[in-house]
Amino acid sequence: MAERIVVALGGNALGKTPQQQLALVKDTAAALVPLAERGYELVIGHGNGPQVGMINLAMEYAALSGGGTPAMPFPECGAMTQGYIGYHLQQALGCALQEQGLKKCCASVITQVVVDPADPGFQNPTKPIGSFYTRQEAARIASEKGFTFTEDAGRGYRRVVPSPLPQRIVELALIERMVAAGDIVITVGGGGIPVVETAEGLKGVAAVIDKDRACALLARELHADKLVILTAVERVCLNYNKPDQRELEKLTLADCERYLAEGQFAPGSMRPKIEACMDFVRSRDGAEAIIASLGCAADALAGRSGTRITR
Amino acid sequence: MAERIVVALGGNALGKTPQQQLALVKDTAAALVPLAERGYELVIGHGNGPQVGMINLAMEYAALSGGGTPAMPFPECGAMTQGYIGYHLQQALGCALQEQGLKKCCASVITQVVVDPADPGFQNPTKPIGSFYTRQEAARIASEKGFTFTEDAGRGYRRVVPSPLPQRIVELALIERMVAAGDIVITVGGGGIPVVETAEGLKGVAAVIDKDRACALLARELHADKLVILTAVERVCLNYNKPDQRELEKLTLADCERYLAEGQFAPGSMRPKIEACMDFVRSRDGAEAIIASLGCAADALAGRSGTRITR
Repeated sequence: MAERIVVALGGNALGKTPQQQLALVKDTAAALVPLAERGYELVIGHGNGPQVGMINLAMEYAALSGGGTPAMPFPECGAMTQGYIGYHLQQALGCALQEQGLKKCCASVITQVVVDPADPGFQNPTKPIGSFYTRQEAARIASEKGFTFTEDAGRGYRRVVPSPLPQRIVELALIERMVAAGDIVITVGGGGIPVVETAEGLKGVAAVIDKDRACALLARELHADKLVILTAVERVCLNYNKPDQRELEKLTLADCERYLAEGQFAPGSMRPKIEACMDFVRSRDGAEAIIASLGCAADALAGRSGTRITR
Repeated sequence: MAERIVVALGGNALGKTPQQQLALVKDTAAALVPLAERGYELVIGHGNGPQVGMINLAMEYAALSGGGTPAMPFPECGAMTQGYIGYHLQQALGCALQEQGLKKCCASVITQVVVDPADPGFQNPTKPIGSFYTRQEAARIASEKGFTFTEDAGRGYRRVVPSPLPQRIVELALIERMVAAGDIVITVGGGGIPVVETAEGLKGVAAVIDKDRACALLARELHADKLVILTAVERVCLNYNKPDQRELEKLTLADCERYLAEGQFAPGSMRPKIEACMDFVRSRDGAEAIIASLGCAADALAGRSGTRITR
């Protein structure tokens, strides 16, 4: 039976402009098509940090500075990035699959992810989004709209949104059927559109779900064999960027816990990736996670690159 | 065996702001869920005129007037609307399905549609998009970017893009599998993201594909039993808005041709809907098209409302 793998792609690896993104998705396709060629069932999640920031900024600027277009809530901006990034990814992947003579199809599914309104993340919004404001502007918008602002490194005040943990992928059953049918599915873009359950149904919330945590949940729920987090470095390192930096080929859950306690992995960077991997590996016997660089994805699956995390 | 129907929804029925859209998709869900309840296989296409206009305007304004965000090509704006509209539609539909105790899943698939670069539409761009410019500004942008502008009803100069016919739905095979598996698929949003085939693969083009024509192609390729175009009027009319206006319950292909020749149906309004229906009805024996109002969708399928178009 085909091995099923969930691949998490970084939003930062997709550039800042549509032209950059269109060029960079070709590298992504070149890295992922060999996996499809080797018969893996592929499910792809991706980040959207720079892209949702860009769309949110543009919509906010046009609405507030005379563009005449309406203000756009944050979850809707996230939905737009799923279309924008998904389109480029599926176009590049489809093209590369065809070049290799593979008869697989690939498409992006707009995906909502349920979060818990009682998640502690909602008490402590940390993800900065949108424009910079003066203290006075920020105070006015905060009182008008109930947004939270924090001072951002001397550059002004910026809105911050919470980063709650993903609880449930709304479109999971449908995604499962697509993957089982052999299609390559792009999903949980930007960690998924965050929604909460209310008496009137699902409702979007202004939040950012970590894409690695969303991909770990996806891998767990799809009973994937492997979660592969692709990033800028070839391997997880101890003492990262220090003279005694050391690359790691393997990590057990116990190793991960020890290194996390030592503060080895930077919050907002390697730490959530390690936590996402641990989450998936714990979920069942034989589950394996790999952190590797995009260019070495195939090598990492063959055991020649990356860091392998097992029980 | 379940009857398969492709439903085409108007972008104008979705409002001009995210708040309006969020309210209006509930009406759409209320109209469509009874069809799922009666066992129809449902595939949903939708327009995006006001929405792609809004996103294109905001991105253009922010890029050109100091927002600091990059210019966004038109096909990418279309991809964004597929995420933005698809998210609202699938949320409302999912919620209404659950309320009715139906175990069906619903999701939007980002969809590209191939157009022919030799399509006569490219020689005669007619769809206005984006901001109004002075004659001088328009001339400058036209020479810089190769865009086409026309004077728009005394309000200034506006970019116009072509409206070529849809030739092929790139993600068709995957959509077919989803529909056959019983899932409700939202696709060809805004007529689909228009792409052309090049030696380097598919490439987005600035164009707007008529959503009714795209839905007719979809219905044909999916071997649907019915194409249902939902619009603002309950039935197709002769002498529309005149004292001798007459509602039509049935039309044959010959009737359609005669009335088209008489100029009964307005270009850009009822005419493309009739043409899309003719296109689908011609495609095979037993294919039937219906033009009806959103609120009367279930009645129209039961033969109690709408205009039925057959061979």
